[in-house]
Amino acid sequence: MTERDRLSFVLHGAVVYSKDKDEMNCFEDAYAVCKDGISEGVFTKLPEEYKELPLIETGGQLIIPGFTDLHIHAPQFQFRGNGMDIELLPWLETYTFPEEAKYSDLSYAEKAYRLFTEELINGATVRASVFATSHRGATLRLMEMLEESGLVTFVGKVNMDRNVPDYYVEDTEGSLSETEKWLNEAAKKGFSRTRPIITPRFTPSCSRELMTGLSELAERYAAPVQSHLSENLSEIKWVSELEPDTSSYADSYVKAGILKKSIPCIMAHCVWSEEEEQEILLENNVFIAHSPDSNTNLSSGAAPVKKYLEKGMNVGLATDVAGGHSASMINAVRSAIRVSKLRNRLFDRDTKALTFPEAFYMATKGGGAFFGKAGSFDKGYSFDALILDDMRIPTTREDLSAMERAERFIYLGDDRYISGKIVAGKRIR
Amino acid sequence: MTERDRLSFVLHGAVVYSKDKDEMNCFEDAYAVCKDGISEGVFTKLPEEYKELPLIETGGQLIIPGFTDLHIHAPQFQFRGNGMDIELLPWLETYTFPEEAKYSDLSYAEKAYRLFTEELINGATVRASVFATSHRGATLRLMEMLEESGLVTFVGKVNMDRNVPDYYVEDTEGSLSETEKWLNEAAKKGFSRTRPIITPRFTPSCSRELMTGLSELAERYAAPVQSHLSENLSEIKWVSELEPDTSSYADSYVKAGILKKSIPCIMAHCVWSEEEEQEILLENNVFIAHSPDSNTNLSSGAAPVKKYLEKGMNVGLATDVAGGHSASMINAVRSAIRVSKLRNRLFDRDTKALTFPEAFYMATKGGGAFFGKAGSFDKGYSFDALILDDMRIPTTREDLSAMERAERFIYLGDDRYISGKIVAGKRIR
Repeated sequence: MTERDRLSFVLHGAVVYSKDKDEMNCFEDAYAVCKDGISEGVFTKLPEEYKELPLIETGGQLIIPGFTDLHIHAPQFQFRGNGMDIELLPWLETYTFPEEAKYSDLSYAEKAYRLFTEELINGATVRASVFATSHRGATLRLMEMLEESGLVTFVGKVNMDRNVPDYYVEDTEGSLSETEKWLNEAAKKGFSRTRPIITPRFTPSCSRELMTGLSELAERYAAPVQSHLSENLSEIKWVSELEPDTSSYADSYVKAGILKKSIPCIMAHCVWSEEEEQEILLENNVFIAHSPDSNTNLSSGAAPVKKYLEKGMNVGLATDVAGGHSASMINAVRSAIRVSKLRNRLFDRDTKALTFPEAFYMATKGGGAFFGKAGSFDKGYSFDALILDDMRIPTTREDLSAMERAERFIYLGDDRYISGKIVAGKRIR
Repeated sequence: MTERDRLSFVLHGAVVYSKDKDEMNCFEDAYAVCKDGISEGVFTKLPEEYKELPLIETGGQLIIPGFTDLHIHAPQFQFRGNGMDIELLPWLETYTFPEEAKYSDLSYAEKAYRLFTEELINGATVRASVFATSHRGATLRLMEMLEESGLVTFVGKVNMDRNVPDYYVEDTEGSLSETEKWLNEAAKKGFSRTRPIITPRFTPSCSRELMTGLSELAERYAAPVQSHLSENLSEIKWVSELEPDTSSYADSYVKAGILKKSIPCIMAHCVWSEEEEQEILLENNVFIAHSPDSNTNLSSGAAPVKKYLEKGMNVGLATDVAGGHSASMINAVRSAIRVSKLRNRLFDRDTKALTFPEAFYMATKGGGAFFGKAGSFDKGYSFDALILDDMRIPTTREDLSAMERAERFIYLGDDRYISGKIVAGKRIR
């Protein structure tokens, strides 16, 4: 049997996935067909042409697309769930920078990234866009581990040349030359699932010169970009002081030439983006990585995500470990709904709360779109699936619909109930 | 060995518990001593007099008091995590009443309450105040199961004589006479851990005549009372229309004679309680069951809990299944902090967010006080403990302090990490 053969099969069970941002496709009993790693669609009666393919019988388990985590910091995984009583800027100084500095030691990185990768394999994430640290060696090692895991990821060596403690800061030129070396070394690895992404930490820690240089690298190496935007009110004020010629936080990226139509881009948070900034994001097809757990834990606020969706902006979900305490995308979906309810009730009655279908959409098709055709079982999409043994979550209700099962899994499920996981047609657990 | 002997032992491990609402007692390596089910205190060096007691060696596991769930609806457990896109009043009509009506069938109740009880045994809850349904038989059966579980609980037969669908409403006289029968039958069971609590559902579904009658029963049978208060803005408006001679929602309970100093009382929610209502609660020593998950899911709002604590009001935490999606008190502690952060950031900058120690306090000593001396390892408290194998939650950090371990458990833990549970000195898992 060849590799291509193994990437072709039929999954039989209940199937739920997003049709669009408001609507779900729900099948109580159906066949999801994967051919060469690509979805052929979902059928209530298996068409003749697929009857030769191996049939995976789930026994009525629930099949949903896997989730895309659009923003997660791999080195922060080790201190997740600690230090949650403080806000962003002191939290970076106290927890983040000291931990990230440790990754200059490759043996520490090896040990720590092993735990991180295992957690991602066990969880509901199939694709992710990952911040590493500033260290080229450790970042390459992380890329190797993620490649081996079967997950599909973007991974970024972090850049920063100001406002970071001496023990962790880079100089501008060194930051750029290390990044170029890293891009070349990553290219030589011949990864099929793991791609580099240019990663200026955020405006406060990147000079314009650095960001302009990174923008050139992004274009030369055809790499996308990821960074942070408008997370916290103190941070936004700081940016306006550091970059007085800009009209918004986003404009600091525009002026540095790194936020533009020709470079695919993820901006994490966008909690406090106002009209002008929203326009910049919309015009440049930026993907917003909405991180409800992180925005709550760090008391940052709650992004007007419903409005973003209605405007047709690209929005995905993210755990943002370790501002987010958990690497579980199941939690991120649940929290997106919950945070939006409190935002609506307490802050802005005009922007409605997210519905379950909307949050599910963002975690699948919404964020998946940054990777191309991902996050759906429609024909032509990369075949990413979770097989869920959700009926083990105790209840007397044996008559739950597929849609009710999906909602219940988001509210009560965790990695214990994931009985199988397929990424781009490849079974990884 | 007698029963009393079995209730005496020494637990050796790391120990964390609340000193008061702001401060924690943290021991990296200590002995928690239980004698006849009562705590003798925590010692870094085991005093001579306890050296004869059986020593339970946890191997450095984390020992904390178990949690008190001050408000949970046992019959709603079966549909938790579903129907979360709607608010309180339609949610009651669509999900709650039809499910609760099923408990007229004792064989259904048996099956459903079995799942509920098992979940509580497996989780972090050691004590709970429980709403059952209006059915005497099913409520008694639930009490038997809870008694057998080893948990310490108050359980209430629900009363309601108006604004409830025909298939589930009671008439006033029938409701009172069933309640008295239930109180007598419960007394005959000779329970040692399970006590009845008078349970008018809430003002909208209880006439003043019914509540006045229940108040008489509460005093005659020396039973406490539990109900709901100021959860949702539509509900509050409805109460003001139903009871036009009252000055606040709480006043509807005062005027019915059921909220008074001589009757211990739990009121769930108090999301929108204003000054006058807060004074009523404070003067009458009412326990507020703060239910952050429920208040979020049903878009009710976020209670000003920090203010309540600062005023010296009694506040405990609650899951409020199934407004709360999860029966896990670990989630309730985490959510209390998180919801208060969003409340502070989005709604009321003057009321600070809760800290981890405050939320931990409410889940232990705060709510535990409704049961007497519970929720602490101070000398004289009932010995309730969770033994946590929290270091199985992956991290490279082997130097975590006991306090950091407790915070991390709240953010990342679940029932998988509870390796032992002791209630009133009795090991129940």
